[in-house]
Amino acid sequence: MASPQNHRTLSLLLLISLLSFTPSQSLSPENHLLLPSNRKLGKDDQLFCESWRFSVETNDAGIWSTIPSRCFDFVKNYITGDHYLLDSKIVAEDELEFAKSVNVSGDGKDAWVFDVDETLLFNIPYYETHGYGSEIFNEESFDEYMLLGKSPPLSASLSLYQELQRLGFTIFILTGRSEPFRNATEANLRLAGYNNWERLILRGPSDKSKLAVEYKSEKRKELVDEGYRIRGNSGDQWSDLLGYAIAQRSFKLPNPMYYIA
Amino acid sequence: MASPQNHRTLSLLLLISLLSFTPSQSLSPENHLLLPSNRKLGKDDQLFCESWRFSVETNDAGIWSTIPSRCFDFVKNYITGDHYLLDSKIVAEDELEFAKSVNVSGDGKDAWVFDVDETLLFNIPYYETHGYGSEIFNEESFDEYMLLGKSPPLSASLSLYQELQRLGFTIFILTGRSEPFRNATEANLRLAGYNNWERLILRGPSDKSKLAVEYKSEKRKELVDEGYRIRGNSGDQWSDLLGYAIAQRSFKLPNPMYYIA
Repeated sequence: MASPQNHRTLSLLLLISLLSFTPSQSLSPENHLLLPSNRKLGKDDQLFCESWRFSVETNDAGIWSTIPSRCFDFVKNYITGDHYLLDSKIVAEDELEFAKSVNVSGDGKDAWVFDVDETLLFNIPYYETHGYGSEIFNEESFDEYMLLGKSPPLSASLSLYQELQRLGFTIFILTGRSEPFRNATEANLRLAGYNNWERLILRGPSDKSKLAVEYKSEKRKELVDEGYRIRGNSGDQWSDLLGYAIAQRSFKLPNPMYYIA
Repeated sequence: MASPQNHRTLSLLLLISLLSFTPSQSLSPENHLLLPSNRKLGKDDQLFCESWRFSVETNDAGIWSTIPSRCFDFVKNYITGDHYLLDSKIVAEDELEFAKSVNVSGDGKDAWVFDVDETLLFNIPYYETHGYGSEIFNEESFDEYMLLGKSPPLSASLSLYQELQRLGFTIFILTGRSEPFRNATEANLRLAGYNNWERLILRGPSDKSKLAVEYKSEKRKELVDEGYRIRGNSGDQWSDLLGYAIAQRSFKLPNPMYYIA
C-alpha cells in the first residue's frame, strides 16, 4: 500500500514541480548538434514516417532500437505537439468506456494494471534532451533521470486513474524499473498526482535477465493466483500487454520513441 | 491444393480484370447522397480522425460498427490515396525482413497464414460504393459482391506472397468467408495473381456461430497439430491474429473501414 507519509512536503514539491513541467524548460539545443535540423518535413518523409509509426504501434516492426533518422522531426513534432496528447486521450476514453461496462464487485478483486514510463508518467524532460528516441538508449543517464523523480503525469492517464478508483477498481502498478528505484518512483508518482495504488511492483534481483513480456506475465499471473480479475491493462509497450495472464481488455498507449521486448 | 485448370481462361480474365480494377470505375456518386460531402477536412477533424485511427488499429477501441461520421472524408482519402498503400508496403517490408530471418527447413512445414479480405484481396470496388465503412455492414450486398470475384490484390501482399513462396514457406489462406463462396474466392484469388497455396480454409457449417477469433484459432491449432510451424500470420483484423495457436510473428495490416470480432 502507498504510505501517506510526507504528504505536505510532497504537495509542496508537486506545486514546484508542476511549475517546472514545461516541456521546453530542460531543452538544451546543444545536445542536438548532431541531429537533423528542425526543418519542415517534406511530404515524402511525412508519409514514410506515418507509415513507420503505424508499423511500430501495431508491433509489426518487431524489435527496433532507434527511430529512423529521417523521422526525427516527425517524432519530435508528434511528442511535443497536440497529436500525442490527443491519441492518449482517445485511448483513455476507450478505457473508461470499457471500465464503466464492468460490473465491479464489492470484493476489491476487480483489478487494473498500469505500466509507469510513458503510461502513468511522461518522461518528456528526459527524451527532449536525448533526441526523442533517435539516440541508442543509455541506461546510466536514464537511471540518473529516474532518481530525480520529476516526470510529469501523462494527463489522460491521470484522469483515467482517478476515475477508475472512483469506479472501485484496485490499482496495480507494474513497471520494468527495478527495486533500487522504488523510492524515487513512488515519490514521482505521488508528485504527479497518483495515490492509493494497491501495490507497486518492480523488477526484483531474480527478474533481471527476463524479457519484459516474461516478467510482466509472471507478475500478472501472481495477481490472478491471488484471486484478482485483471479487467484492464494499460501500457505503451506490447510487452506490457501480451504474453499470458492477459487482461480482459488491454490498451496500447502511443509511443513512437522506443521499443521494449 | 489449388488446381491448375482453366489457367488460360483465368489469365485472360486477369487481364480483363486488371483493366477494370481502377478504383474510380465503380464509384456511383448517387450512393453517397446521404453521406458527408467531399469537403476538405478541418484541422480538428483531421487530428481527431488520426487519433481515432490509432485507437482502432491498435485494438484499443474494441468492437465498433461504423466509422465516425466526421471521419468519412478522412477514411476515404486514406483508403483511396497513397497512405493505405504505403502503410501496407511498410508492413510487407517488416514481414519480408522477418521471413528472411527464418531458417526454412526442407520439410514443407514452415507455414504462413494469410487472411483474404483487406489482406490478400482489396475490396475497394465494394467499399467505394458503400461508404468506406460509414454504412452498417450489409451481408447480402457483400455476398453478391463476393460472387463477382473481382477484387484486386492488395499489391504489397501479392509481392510478399510470391516472395514467401520463393523462400519456401507453405501458404495457408484462412478466411472468415464461408464454404458457399469457395469457388468465387478461389477464382478471385487466381485472377488477382495468387497461386499454389497449400489449402484455402473457409468457415464450414459448424463454424457459423463462432467469433472469428475463435474459428481462426481453432483452424490454426489444427495446422499446428498437423506439424506445421506457423511462422507468420498476416491479417487486417486483430481477430485474424490473436486467440491461441498464435504465429511466431503476427502482422496487423491497416483497415480503418470495419471491425470483425
